[in-house]
Amino acid sequence: MFRRLFAPTIEVSAHCDLPCGVYDPAQARIEAESIAAIIKKVADNDDPDFRTRALIIKEQRSELVKHHLWVLWTDYFKPPHFEKYPELHGLVNEATKLAGATGTKGSMDASTADELLDKIDAIAKIFWETKQG
Amino acid sequence: MFRRLFAPTIEVSAHCDLPCGVYDPAQARIEAESIAAIIKKVADNDDPDFRTRALIIKEQRSELVKHHLWVLWTDYFKPPHFEKYPELHGLVNEATKLAGATGTKGSMDASTADELLDKIDAIAKIFWETKQG
Amino acid sequence: MFRRLFAPTIEVSAHCDLPCGVYDPAQARIEAESIAAIIKKVADNDDPDFRTRALIIKEQRSELVKHHLWVLWTDYFKPPHFEKYPELHGLVNEATKLAGATGTKGSMDASTADELLDKIDAIAKIFWETKQG
Amino acid sequence: MFRRLFAPTIEVSAHCDLPCGVYDPAQARIEAESIAAIIKKVADNDDPDFRTRALIIKEQRSELVKHHLWVLWTDYFKPPHFEKYPELHGLVNEATKLAGATGTKGSMDASTADELLDKIDAIAKIFWETKQG
Amino acid sequence: MFRRLFAPTIEVSAHCDLPCGVYDPAQARIEAESIAAIIKKVADNDDPDFRTRALIIKEQRSELVKHHLWVLWTDYFKPPHFEKYPELHGLVNEATKLAGATGTKGSMDASTADELLDKIDAIAKIFWETKQG
Amino acid sequence: MFRRLFAPTIEVSAHCDLPCGVYDPAQARIEAESIAAIIKKVADNDDPDFRTRALIIKEQRSELVKHHLWVLWTDYFKPPHFEKYPELHGLVNEATKLAGATGTKGSMDASTADELLDKIDAIAKIFWETKQG
Repeated sequence: MFRRLFAPTIEVSAHCDLPCGVYDPAQARIEAESIAAIIKKVADNDDPDFRTRALIIKEQRSELVKHHLWVLWTDYFKPPHFEKYPELHGLVNEATKLAGATGTKGSMDASTADELLDKIDAIAKIFWETKQG
Repeated sequence: MFRRLFAPTIEVSAHCDLPCGVYDPAQARIEAESIAAIIKKVADNDDPDFRTRALIIKEQRSELVKHHLWVLWTDYFKPPHFEKYPELHGLVNEATKLAGATGTKGSMDASTADELLDKIDAIAKIFWETKQG
Repeated sequence: MFRRLFAPTIEVSAHCDLPCGVYDPAQARIEAESIAAIIKKVADNDDPDFRTRALIIKEQRSELVKHHLWVLWTDYFKPPHFEKYPELHGLVNEATKLAGATGTKGSMDASTADELLDKIDAIAKIFWETKQG
Repeated sequence: MFRRLFAPTIEVSAHCDLPCGVYDPAQARIEAESIAAIIKKVADNDDPDFRTRALIIKEQRSELVKHHLWVLWTDYFKPPHFEKYPELHGLVNEATKLAGATGTKGSMDASTADELLDKIDAIAKIFWETKQG
Repeated sequence: MFRRLFAPTIEVSAHCDLPCGVYDPAQARIEAESIAAIIKKVADNDDPDFRTRALIIKEQRSELVKHHLWVLWTDYFKPPHFEKYPELHGLVNEATKLAGATGTKGSMDASTADELLDKIDAIAKIFWETKQG
Repeated sequence: MFRRLFAPTIEVSAHCDLPCGVYDPAQARIEAESIAAIIKKVADNDDPDFRTRALIIKEQRSELVKHHLWVLWTDYFKPPHFEKYPELHGLVNEATKLAGATGTKGSMDASTADELLDKIDAIAKIFWETKQG
């Protein structure tokens, strides 16, 4: 049942700007994990067509990571959060850069996907603290 | 950390057809919960523009419920699952119908969203049993 | 010519969930024929960029086949149809799988596209029988 | 039946710019017929939410009519066609205008949808003559 | 020719993450101006269908404003910029909030669109200073 | 300020069919310049993955060029314009063909992108004359 409790906020945070009022940093992490999985699959597969398909899909997933983090930064985090966590703006900015052309879009290195995952976790840590605060 | 463990599979199941190999019925449930939340917000708000915005967004969320369930039905469930759960085809079919014009797209009744949620839970119950099987 | 005869209502069935009340299995067949045509063109062309473009477009067409069949399964077919044609659920499920990663998305074999076309024709045969029934 | 006869190649012509080499004016007609059907349904239904849903969907269908006609005008018709049918440019231009803000997007009049259908038929007549030419 | 010189960077900044290396805050401003224009047209038009169409389009334009500002914040602005303009993170965050549910998506007030335009201009002022710096 | 004056009309002309009443041929030119930039970057980079990403993005930019020119042709230009500039229909038709499979979508030649840019400039010249007329 935990799955139900947590999962909902993700998609909603990324799509529903009525708003539905629920947010979660997991959505971005999932896309980043998908990117890491894609990169690993490519490393284990030497079919050039498979690599092309992986690049097509990795481009989309990376864009989704950027989108979900942007939604969190704009729709969930409020001024008090940015005051309490002065590094928050920078963290989100760096994380979204890591999902762009200079990050997972332009790279097939597992380390780049890991860096992105670490940044998302740092943002998630703050997110959950604000939820309990 | 449970949130991390469960959330990932959702978006991935709905988007990544490389495939990434992870699936979860929660994605559809989230959209259905979003629909239920939208319907409740409309019941508490008599601004006609708000209702129009709710209809625009509810149309999109309902389509997402259909899409996520279809992905689960086609990409995750295999012949053995359908043999073991003969009611599975019908359950997914009824659930997707409940998210269409004769369901949450065409209705602003909370009961319709609840019926949809119940069907999704029935599908999720089978899904998790197959994961442990 | 039959294929042509079926088409018009398709796009409508796939897009308009007001609903407009018209459905047709040809939409899915057209996309599958497009996939077959793309695969044939690639076989006759050794330009790597052309192959990449073909993979980009084939990925989209395959997703459309899945979508159009899902719409038909959910929005057109009703309980009486599934009772009269117990194999219908399985046919649609197999057809959509044939348009995914294990089917035309992941393959450049003409035989895979042909298998998909045959499944769509089997669904179309049932569809037109229900129209006359 | 002619309308049906024209359809199959449309979706392909509208989506596949590899290209697949097939074109058809029916795609645009289907969308226009969907618009006409939507307008009729609204005339028979006084539920304000239904009208809002109809406006949301009619906006999308009208955009599709414009898109399919544009694809036909650019991807199928060649210089010789425009020389033989000097009125062709104007016909397509007028038809697309009839699917815009000054046409079916901005109107709920059945006559506007009928005017659009007539223009599409005039284009279809030329299209099929070029196919036999 | 000025138009050519400046316009290009907009769309590119919002879409091309190869990247093409050109950026411009005008893209976001255009969408905001479109929103202001939509709000004004609604104030001068009492047709309920027109208002519904305006709400549908305003929802999309507002999302575009958020997207274009996010792209600028992530893809164009670099650490040195954020160091030189410590208020930059906050400005972009406030501007994107002004284009959301609590801003132009949820409001039909011209003043809300004006506030959004002012924020975008403040961001544009910094942007052009960094270009000359 | 020129930038503000000219840029706005672009995106609006391509997206807002309320309509907002502003148009500009620069939108199409920007996409074409993006294509030219992509082609140049590929010529200077022998990483096969970079080339694949360039093909994915070039496919999208080319489609945008076609879309923006179609919008201009249908939504901005009126009968008097076509009477005064009898070559206008042909110019737009040729320009959109140059952004398709036989143009920038199917080619990685800088000359093809230049031909497209010249056609767009010819259309822009007429556009601005009609604005002053």
